Amino acid sequence: MDTVMRLIVVGGVAGGATAAARARRLSENAEIIVFERGEHVSFANCGLPYYVGQEIAERESLLLETPESLHARYRLDVRARTEVLAIERAEHCVRARDLESGREYTERYDRLILSPGAAPIRPPLPGIEHPRIFSLRTVPDSDKIKAMVDGGARRAVVVGGGFIGLEMAENLRRRGLEVALVELLDQVMPPFDKEMVTPVHEELRGHGVALHLADAVAQFEDEQDGLTAVLKSGTRLPADLVVLSIGVRPETTLAAEAGLEIGPHGGIHVGDDMRTSDPDIYAVGDAVEVRDCVVGGTALIPLAGPANRQGRIAADRVFGRESEYHGTQGTSIVRVFGLTLALTGASEKTLTRVGHAHEKVYIHPMQHAGYYPGAERLTIKLLFSPADGKVLGAQIAGQEGVDKRIDVLATAIRAGMTVYDLEELELAYAPPFGSAKDPINMAGFVAANVLKGDVEIIHADALEQVEGELIDVRKPDEHSEGHIPGSRNIPVDDLRDRLDELPADKPLVVYCQIGLRGYVAARILTQRGYTVLNLSGGFNTYRGYFAEATRS
Amino acid sequence: MDTVMRLIVVGGVAGGATAAARARRLSENAEIIVFERGEHVSFANCGLPYYVGQEIAERESLLLETPESLHARYRLDVRARTEVLAIERAEHCVRARDLESGREYTERYDRLILSPGAAPIRPPLPGIEHPRIFSLRTVPDSDKIKAMVDGGARRAVVVGGGFIGLEMAENLRRRGLEVALVELLDQVMPPFDKEMVTPVHEELRGHGVALHLADAVAQFEDEQDGLTAVLKSGTRLPADLVVLSIGVRPETTLAAEAGLEIGPHGGIHVGDDMRTSDPDIYAVGDAVEVRDCVVGGTALIPLAGPANRQGRIAADRVFGRESEYHGTQGTSIVRVFGLTLALTGASEKTLTRVGHAHEKVYIHPMQHAGYYPGAERLTIKLLFSPADGKVLGAQIAGQEGVDKRIDVLATAIRAGMTVYDLEELELAYAPPFGSAKDPINMAGFVAANVLKGDVEIIHADALEQVEGELIDVRKPDEHSEGHIPGSRNIPVDDLRDRLDELPADKPLVVYCQIGLRGYVAARILTQRGYTVLNLSGGFNTYRGYFAEATRS
Repeated sequence: MDTVMRLIVVGGVAGGATAAARARRLSENAEIIVFERGEHVSFANCGLPYYVGQEIAERESLLLETPESLHARYRLDVRARTEVLAIERAEHCVRARDLESGREYTERYDRLILSPGAAPIRPPLPGIEHPRIFSLRTVPDSDKIKAMVDGGARRAVVVGGGFIGLEMAENLRRRGLEVALVELLDQVMPPFDKEMVTPVHEELRGHGVALHLADAVAQFEDEQDGLTAVLKSGTRLPADLVVLSIGVRPETTLAAEAGLEIGPHGGIHVGDDMRTSDPDIYAVGDAVEVRDCVVGGTALIPLAGPANRQGRIAADRVFGRESEYHGTQGTSIVRVFGLTLALTGASEKTLTRVGHAHEKVYIHPMQHAGYYPGAERLTIKLLFSPADGKVLGAQIAGQEGVDKRIDVLATAIRAGMTVYDLEELELAYAPPFGSAKDPINMAGFVAANVLKGDVEIIHADALEQVEGELIDVRKPDEHSEGHIPGSRNIPVDDLRDRLDELPADKPLVVYCQIGLRGYVAARILTQRGYTVLNLSGGFNTYRGYFAEATRS
Repeated sequence: MDTVMRLIVVGGVAGGATAAARARRLSENAEIIVFERGEHVSFANCGLPYYVGQEIAERESLLLETPESLHARYRLDVRARTEVLAIERAEHCVRARDLESGREYTERYDRLILSPGAAPIRPPLPGIEHPRIFSLRTVPDSDKIKAMVDGGARRAVVVGGGFIGLEMAENLRRRGLEVALVELLDQVMPPFDKEMVTPVHEELRGHGVALHLADAVAQFEDEQDGLTAVLKSGTRLPADLVVLSIGVRPETTLAAEAGLEIGPHGGIHVGDDMRTSDPDIYAVGDAVEVRDCVVGGTALIPLAGPANRQGRIAADRVFGRESEYHGTQGTSIVRVFGLTLALTGASEKTLTRVGHAHEKVYIHPMQHAGYYPGAERLTIKLLFSPADGKVLGAQIAGQEGVDKRIDVLATAIRAGMTVYDLEELELAYAPPFGSAKDPINMAGFVAANVLKGDVEIIHADALEQVEGELIDVRKPDEHSEGHIPGSRNIPVDDLRDRLDELPADKPLVVYCQIGLRGYVAARILTQRGYTVLNLSGGFNTYRGYFAEATRS
């Protein structure tokens, strides 16, 4: 057995709980103390919105472990409601305060793992201290919001359209409240590219959520039995409760005051071994800056999966194992009513921001065999390197089968696969699950066709820059139901017989509903010497770009 | 534009249809003729059982393309109901017969792509020609079976428990028939390892399918308004109809008579370029032998996805592109009532047969967060190389989320990933979709723990070979509900305080329900100097091995 090691873990949720349990599995005789400021350890953060919405019926199911259960299984000395006030690095001590009794004391450590998490941002707006304004981070937070709803709240304002904001909007609607969602950007789900969230906007509105995009709260005004969120636009949103979900800020006070290095994004700096600038102190989870394993550099990417893995790695390191964290790719997913939206790797806006060369394609395949009942279209945006076809990122929206495809693409990115590899993936096919040519294969085909020069594509936002003839190759009834202004209709099957209708002196831009017939049309025409561009993703993707514009 | 190429494709379904369409996209001026013996091209083979079961309501939805639609879109000269009788290689001709008129004629080719498929095996049993015995390969086949069911058939015997057999059993039950399933082996789904199909046997029986395993039809006897399948065991199964689904045999007559090389398994031999032994003739789909990309060597692996990809590659090759087929890994999936069973890569029986070193682990994780409603357990068997941890194969059974995990593992195998890579995969987590530690990560953790020597495991079928003390570390109520004979119960949380109850002189075999508490127990005891083996997959996997035995 190893020499007695005294390990202190600060923070008993996600990464901290994982680190402590892993530490015990590695060493039966280490002393392991876990400090947790809140009253709960290892609770289901990601389940809180669903508890408010009563989709998760039992509060107890949120409490994955208790100090008692962690002691029984792992002999962890878990001290809940105990705040670590300071790290005295020179003495290898932490100073802690029991929040019940107020007692302060110090504990010596050989190694320290920090897992303080991140705190919801509360902007310093007039009226922000109103008692009906809530954040959602802990079980008690969800208790308070749920009590308001149970008590008859009818109108809610959700501020911030990220993961938690959308989940709260859905769950409050589920409870029958009127819900207004305010988002500073002109789109919800900021990590996604804007055209990909168009269906989310439609889904939210379709379920009665009042969307206030490109707007922000200027102040909160107290009312009798409620409050009003006054927006910058002047819109007034009366509410019985407000949920703030505008993002989180890493909890770095403890680390910073102890002189540990803080990174450029304001998170705790760690190496691939999760070690901070103090060799005896590790840090994991939402408080640390991680390496972005697609575009490089560091970033704050607060996600549960990475937090847990980092906890495991930190524990490994404490006990002399060579585990390394290989960066975060940002795989994430959200369900919004009947729609699912998921992302992995870099977005187009990130690639553009960091100046990373990229190409993209859009496809809209059925999630399983079209002839089997229940087939619905996915929208997949695939980002890849023009030089070698390496997959850089993907975003998917749809009803069923979104999580499967994002996980396959997340795996492909982790493996360094190219779009040519996607063509070859051998995925499971039976009618209820997929197609002989899976959506992932289709994404590979379409991207490879572009890279091999079999088709030149154009994107919806670049249409205006091309002086070309716009040809809708769909059927006449599809054309008459809606088309891109200025386009003329020649169905793909008629194209070979109607070449005389095409101008020979300018480029042709062809499009169909999803890009497939457009590709066939492009092949037909390119081989006859025309200069042809196919609109990637067809009319569906065009709508993704412009449906919002035609609304107002 | 290219010089005029005359391409003939034999077989207009799956690989053949894909090859022809791809050929046209590559060359607008090639002449492309497609011969199809049946009356339908490009139909949904995999949908046929669901059409019989009326889950697919419309017959037309099975007919993905028609000769007319393929001509309109691709200017293919599709000749249905036309059989190719012979390939005259020296003359670069095929001899064809119009099955309607009986007219025979020859067509010249520059390049030929064979996609003849595979035919259902009809064993030469007494009574096999009975008109109530059907196979299921074509739309007319499904019409005949459906007509029998629509006409009031009440009792069906399905012979063969592979994919089609199970799908037919389900769909005939769905139509209200009594169904008996006869399978020569002692398990259904022969590509899977036997312990993994135990839940399928239970699911079939639970839905009223009478399973006759390790038995076979000896003969069919004619009855008034029906027939009786007489089994080798003597069991007599009276039926209104019989569906034969005991496998398929590659259709190689045409190729063999033309002197093309036939491989050791009886399929057409092709290279990675899908070229036969004649440089102007390619072959694709169920009729060819493919390279097994996990264990090497060639095999017959009739699957729709690979057939389609091979068709694309053959067309590429005809037009001078360097595409290559990189082998088949056998990814497949079947839904059986409420259960899904899926496989990718090598099975344990294949690895054992070819003498490929392997280790395995079993896990039973929830398919999504346990605190979110609807969480159900998956059973995952992961096979990997003991030398370097390379993933060799996986089998999964469960309700939801099986297809996702098998596709991630199929991608991991294609990428050459190890179990250590599985630990690190960053997969999408929100409560409805997964867990912060996804089942795939868990499989990686458990396998890596074995390879790193953190725990020694034992498998259920090896329990008898160990002279050890069997300790059930579950709770007393779990123990009393069912346990391995001869085991004593010491809950994991009590273990540290009850060491004095353990024998010091022999190995300990610990087990729990799924293997997780057993692992913790093994870590506790190993660090105290005991020799400990953890039963992989726990009591759940034990039941997979032995539930069948305790039935009879």
